[in-house]
Amino acid sequence: MTTTHATGSPGGGAEGAAGLLSRTRTTVNPRLRATVESLPGQIRRIARYHFGWEHADGTPTEANAGKAIRPALVLAATQAFGGDPKEAVRAAAAVELAHNFTLLHDDVIDEDPTRRNRPTAWTVFGIPDAIIAGDALCALSLRLLAEDPHPASARAAARLADCVIELCAGQQADCAFENRAPQDVTIDECLTMAEAKTGALLGCACALGALYAGAGDEEVEAMDAFGREAGLAFQLIDDLIGIWGDPAHTGKPAGADLAAHKKSLPVVAAMASGSPAAGELAELYRAPAMDASAVRRAADAVERAGGRDWAQTQAADRMARAVHHLSRAVPDLASADELLALAEFVTRRTR
Amino acid sequence: MTTTHATGSPGGGAEGAAGLLSRTRTTVNPRLRATVESLPGQIRRIARYHFGWEHADGTPTEANAGKAIRPALVLAATQAFGGDPKEAVRAAAAVELAHNFTLLHDDVIDEDPTRRNRPTAWTVFGIPDAIIAGDALCALSLRLLAEDPHPASARAAARLADCVIELCAGQQADCAFENRAPQDVTIDECLTMAEAKTGALLGCACALGALYAGAGDEEVEAMDAFGREAGLAFQLIDDLIGIWGDPAHTGKPAGADLAAHKKSLPVVAAMASGSPAAGELAELYRAPAMDASAVRRAADAVERAGGRDWAQTQAADRMARAVHHLSRAVPDLASADELLALAEFVTRRTR
Repeated sequence: MTTTHATGSPGGGAEGAAGLLSRTRTTVNPRLRATVESLPGQIRRIARYHFGWEHADGTPTEANAGKAIRPALVLAATQAFGGDPKEAVRAAAAVELAHNFTLLHDDVIDEDPTRRNRPTAWTVFGIPDAIIAGDALCALSLRLLAEDPHPASARAAARLADCVIELCAGQQADCAFENRAPQDVTIDECLTMAEAKTGALLGCACALGALYAGAGDEEVEAMDAFGREAGLAFQLIDDLIGIWGDPAHTGKPAGADLAAHKKSLPVVAAMASGSPAAGELAELYRAPAMDASAVRRAADAVERAGGRDWAQTQAADRMARAVHHLSRAVPDLASADELLALAEFVTRRTR
Repeated sequence: MTTTHATGSPGGGAEGAAGLLSRTRTTVNPRLRATVESLPGQIRRIARYHFGWEHADGTPTEANAGKAIRPALVLAATQAFGGDPKEAVRAAAAVELAHNFTLLHDDVIDEDPTRRNRPTAWTVFGIPDAIIAGDALCALSLRLLAEDPHPASARAAARLADCVIELCAGQQADCAFENRAPQDVTIDECLTMAEAKTGALLGCACALGALYAGAGDEEVEAMDAFGREAGLAFQLIDDLIGIWGDPAHTGKPAGADLAAHKKSLPVVAAMASGSPAAGELAELYRAPAMDASAVRRAADAVERAGGRDWAQTQAADRMARAVHHLSRAVPDLASADELLALAEFVTRRTR
């Protein structure tokens, strides 16, 4: 009964995940919207824009508001431990609010002009307002848990706050790497940064879901580890998309991460290979700017230096570890059906 | 027994407050430091610098780390309701962390180069790191409450998170005012902004102290109102200091708020007076920059237009309202001894 998922069912899993994400949005969005509506005036407007619910002028829209992977993990984890996902809707919304707080601030810090095919909030409302709106979403996410009468809410709030601090550490490390020579950043440092920046919140989402179902400490930690490893796999795939992704799907120009001189995981792995292609890549990264042709040559160099293969292999390895942790937490993997479908979904995005 | 405080005892109250603030720092700083020490690597370093515990290079120092008015209000409020201040030390530290999160971000947003006679964190560590460190302090303050086993901690966390959102609204309004013509900002708007930006956190500090002593809902709300009104008085005095304060005490150049074209409360009141001096002031504010002479003329115009007197009268009026709210919450004002001393202290700073 576990074999269907352990061996993978390419089409079914992804379809299941897509349906699950859609159901999650239907379940969580009303709570998310009601919570955002409690924000004061202009901050509410910025949040509505950022979530893709409104245009910059305040008229309603139905833009891409994100896939809701993190809230889906919360609800699926609750379900996996026999809990009622309905009781974990606040926790799911809280995780999504925390995620969007980091997006608002990361876009300011990284000076990213677009997200989800739309101008980022700071380009529309200015840097001060985007910083302030992010601050408010951070406080709002923790308020939602503090106000939740559920017996697990205090532990969940402490965990989410801890996770926010780790997300900050990850973003800080990411910024620091950008100011160092590419060869000075090791793959281990880069993986630690990616775990903090991406893995931590997916882990937290899974842990919160388990907490809300009354799972024991060991199960909660195993769920955190599952989410972290799946998150690293997700980040590796995201980094691959940042180089070879289709702009129509990513909402960013082709090779955006290379043009921004990002030391993403495939790039760092390529640099560390010591191959001639690594030297070509390092030289391209030393130039202050890359035109479209240089971006193509850089992508080619990453591939020839083995960065693309390394990242794909690492992603598969992380997924194997994720499944191992999940099987520790939920020995009957049939109960973890949805969690596996979500984990498979995030690592299948490029295909 | 209440007359000593109700009529005011100028010397004694201030001395009592100074001693109380010093005792508060002795009580709360170990918890504050231990909490900051839990932050990861570079974020911890930025926080230590911001709190005045370290130089930029990481060597220890004993710089001015702030007066600890907010933590003192928490402990004094607990005491006033017969609680044990020792049990409210976490709440006191949480309020101080939240306050310092806002300082880090406000300095970035306002581009302030100095605070407490030292270069602001963003000038030393860069804007991204200062934003990130602020985010981490915000999460840390709410984590401290979420982890507190005290029965009031969840309600306190929800209240502090709500307060952070109000602080954000205040800072947002403040920024928005800077982009409007001086005559377009009304005194009421300005007072609402000041209440959100300053009063809310002093009110929250008092409310948390009451919550930790097991006070009832009405008492908690009255304590919040006491802190808010005292906070408005505090802000009015602070605005007066921003124009007429001694740079040696403020750590900012003379008339810094005028040079920055800040629409502080005395300025807005002066502009609204319709007097010839208001016209002079508006003209000085229309110029893109003010030299030292223009700053002196602007200060003179605010005074002649009645802005200085108005702010001083308002401060006294707000203090009277604060005492009224306090007497509702704590009918035996002798029990509110310390709270009154603190409220008197903040409104006596210019003398």
